[in-house]
Amino acid sequence: MMNADNNAWSRKHLLGMDGLNREEIGAILDTASAIREVNHRPIKKVPILKGKTVINLFYENSTRTRTSFELAGKRMSADVVNISASSSSVSKGETLLDTMANLQAMNPDVVVLRHPNSGAPHFLARHLDAGIINAGDGQHEHPTQCLLDLLTMQDHLGKMGRDNFEGMTVAICGDVLHSRVARSNAFALRTLGAKVRFSGPPTLMPSRAEEVFDVTVHHRMEEAVEGADVVMMLRLQQERMAAAYLPSVREYFRYWGLTRQRLELTRPHAVVMHPGPINRGVEIATDVADNPNRSVILEQVTNGLAVRMAVLYHLCTGAARSASNIAGE
Amino acid sequence: MMNADNNAWSRKHLLGMDGLNREEIGAILDTASAIREVNHRPIKKVPILKGKTVINLFYENSTRTRTSFELAGKRMSADVVNISASSSSVSKGETLLDTMANLQAMNPDVVVLRHPNSGAPHFLARHLDAGIINAGDGQHEHPTQCLLDLLTMQDHLGKMGRDNFEGMTVAICGDVLHSRVARSNAFALRTLGAKVRFSGPPTLMPSRAEEVFDVTVHHRMEEAVEGADVVMMLRLQQERMAAAYLPSVREYFRYWGLTRQRLELTRPHAVVMHPGPINRGVEIATDVADNPNRSVILEQVTNGLAVRMAVLYHLCTGAARSASNIAGE
Amino acid sequence: MMNADNNAWSRKHLLGMDGLNREEIGAILDTASAIREVNHRPIKKVPILKGKTVINLFYENSTRTRTSFELAGKRMSADVVNISASSSSVSKGETLLDTMANLQAMNPDVVVLRHPNSGAPHFLARHLDAGIINAGDGQHEHPTQCLLDLLTMQDHLGKMGRDNFEGMTVAICGDVLHSRVARSNAFALRTLGAKVRFSGPPTLMPSRAEEVFDVTVHHRMEEAVEGADVVMMLRLQQERMAAAYLPSVREYFRYWGLTRQRLELTRPHAVVMHPGPINRGVEIATDVADNPNRSVILEQVTNGLAVRMAVLYHLCTGAARSASNIAGE
Repeated sequence: MMNADNNAWSRKHLLGMDGLNREEIGAILDTASAIREVNHRPIKKVPILKGKTVINLFYENSTRTRTSFELAGKRMSADVVNISASSSSVSKGETLLDTMANLQAMNPDVVVLRHPNSGAPHFLARHLDAGIINAGDGQHEHPTQCLLDLLTMQDHLGKMGRDNFEGMTVAICGDVLHSRVARSNAFALRTLGAKVRFSGPPTLMPSRAEEVFDVTVHHRMEEAVEGADVVMMLRLQQERMAAAYLPSVREYFRYWGLTRQRLELTRPHAVVMHPGPINRGVEIATDVADNPNRSVILEQVTNGLAVRMAVLYHLCTGAARSASNIAGE
Repeated sequence: MMNADNNAWSRKHLLGMDGLNREEIGAILDTASAIREVNHRPIKKVPILKGKTVINLFYENSTRTRTSFELAGKRMSADVVNISASSSSVSKGETLLDTMANLQAMNPDVVVLRHPNSGAPHFLARHLDAGIINAGDGQHEHPTQCLLDLLTMQDHLGKMGRDNFEGMTVAICGDVLHSRVARSNAFALRTLGAKVRFSGPPTLMPSRAEEVFDVTVHHRMEEAVEGADVVMMLRLQQERMAAAYLPSVREYFRYWGLTRQRLELTRPHAVVMHPGPINRGVEIATDVADNPNRSVILEQVTNGLAVRMAVLYHLCTGAARSASNIAGE
Repeated sequence: MMNADNNAWSRKHLLGMDGLNREEIGAILDTASAIREVNHRPIKKVPILKGKTVINLFYENSTRTRTSFELAGKRMSADVVNISASSSSVSKGETLLDTMANLQAMNPDVVVLRHPNSGAPHFLARHLDAGIINAGDGQHEHPTQCLLDLLTMQDHLGKMGRDNFEGMTVAICGDVLHSRVARSNAFALRTLGAKVRFSGPPTLMPSRAEEVFDVTVHHRMEEAVEGADVVMMLRLQQERMAAAYLPSVREYFRYWGLTRQRLELTRPHAVVMHPGPINRGVEIATDVADNPNRSVILEQVTNGLAVRMAVLYHLCTGAARSASNIAGE
């Protein structure tokens, strides 16, 4: 049920996928798998984190990520406290360092941080005793989204005729420039031996992406998806498009939307992913998003809870206890 | 302590009072009664819903209803997660259907929904596995408010010289048109055999109310309250009055306010109800609202918690377990 | 470990420090000390308040105070419900008295109230069955902040060569006029036998402070801090300064900021306190705020949780149970 790599996780923080090795990634995915029951839904209540304190510190609104972590903590019997920036003392002109002191005073075991500035979780990690989970920092990383993406891909390895990620081809398409999801996935997928293709308008592509991320860049979407095992569409943040990319939504879809025609270029069992929320008819056609044989978008969402339970578990308990204890208790 | 009707509840959702039969209504009222201890306050902690997940999804502000459900869930040891629309992803342009997927991923046992659109809970019920409780949908229904009203009336049956609701006369007065409380109560009271009278300004009365709700409509308030066992005043939503009913608040009170004089027209032991919050001097005179022999407004508020505990209990556990287990654990 | 004074606490409310006697203050400080473990952090989970309901009712934003009470309640296994004024029915024009009824219906054991109006907690205490904790009312009192200040001072008595507060000199400096922290501390410190000095611009000093608070008032800061055991700096609320005190922030710091030079006038082991959040370079120099030998500002923050656990414990359980039960369970 569980492999020995499960003890590979000995980090205190989850700041990003950059730098995690295969064993570390595998340990979290294994724990998340173990947490899921036969119907792929996580167990509903275990006392394993009783007495642990989890603080959800959100400087940006994200109901889905916040509630996912909140519920993950509660199901494992942790005490969970939500702090949103709008109601925080930040507005009184307090420095981030002074905020830290107040967080430290609550002696949390884990702080889950969503922040508009890249690197904010790393700052927190240097100043707090708590373990830090990056729940999205600016345009930098979003590791738990990546982990739920990996878990979803792993569930479909058999269909792809594979044992692991080695040699799998993943096309990541759309607004790569602003996407922390794309960055986290590129780092992790390269570590796991998958081939990664970036595709999107030149104005929405990071500079020197080939070098920085060790991927290939494709300026025609057809080229990117051809023969791919996985097509991961990114959310188009339309407020950003106005400035960065003048053409209309209609024109964007024409060149960069995932249509049925483009999907036919992939491998026969290729899966379609999207981090949500979807802009139907902008980055993806409705019939593709809802195609039961190809779209695994709902599975991604479902896997979020199990992955976050696994990450909280590893950070709160360290590598000493094996994941079998979770399912067993 | 409990009657056999308690097993009558086998529904998955509580979407409205319309369509519930006597046995179903009785089952919830019996459970709510059993939950209340000698002093009519609900028990403070039972482990009966441990491992159940309740999501409070509020698209309109309603502190009293939200906190009532939150506390009801917590007292029965459920995990409760609050989501308010203002902080939700709705503002990112997500469709309601995509929101559903994210709710489903949390695998809740019950979703409590307050929504400005009539029928929203029915939509949710068709798309989610969870049980849905309608906590107020537009001008349509508000079943838990109705159930606490019924429990309060039931507590006073003896004083009225009755065994049950059969033949009781309830005058529902004020802004009937916009009131989901009036609608839910009319449906339930007619099912239980009570006579219902609607009264209010013609501009604030639903069209064809007699037919639709099987009630009598009275254009003079004196006629409506005469000989009534219960006078249920509705909250005047003053922002709506401006458009619908030109006269001033003072004039409204003159024709449609519950004064001591009008109260004297009722039966000697008639009770006065109001869903709150009260506009004193607008729909009801302060001395009537605070009359300890007649006003049961505070009892209504107190009964809200027990009724919501009972509804959560029935939806989470199904009809198999009898309510005696709640009080017993 | 615990002294017998612990049974001195038999009050139902904590409305302010004014009127509490030495035994009552000592009882809470003793309990808070007992709750802290060897590393001065409070224990993380005890079932002692299981089945108790705590409502955090905040009419002003205060993330640090709200989360401190929330976590204090959760660690002792109480059910905690947060209500913030912005989302409450207050905006519907409900009277405070009607709000009370809805609070009462939830049958809370303790209501923690933060309110902009002085005396609001006393109003609540007269109308609710619950115990009331004043978490800051206007410019009146903030007793739990005072208690954490006292606990912090008590921890440093040895360093000062003292057994208790008798004869200790505390300089409270800055915007005394608007400070509920200054008021609560002055009342408590005088009760405990300490000497209190107020210092600050004449426009930010309460009238007749000497009489009202039984303190000395000093119009030069040097005079206030000379020979003091404790210097308690107050937060300058800059939005208030504009109106009350025309000179600039720079000029304020020149006359009323705590600099290294001024700190040298105190007793050799004097400690520096601040209720936070700090305006660095306005009321206190950064090197003083961060001086590890003198500044106990972080200890104050840390002590907040233990003090609030102690207060909740005493109010929920009454004087009958001794604090040893908390640490023991």
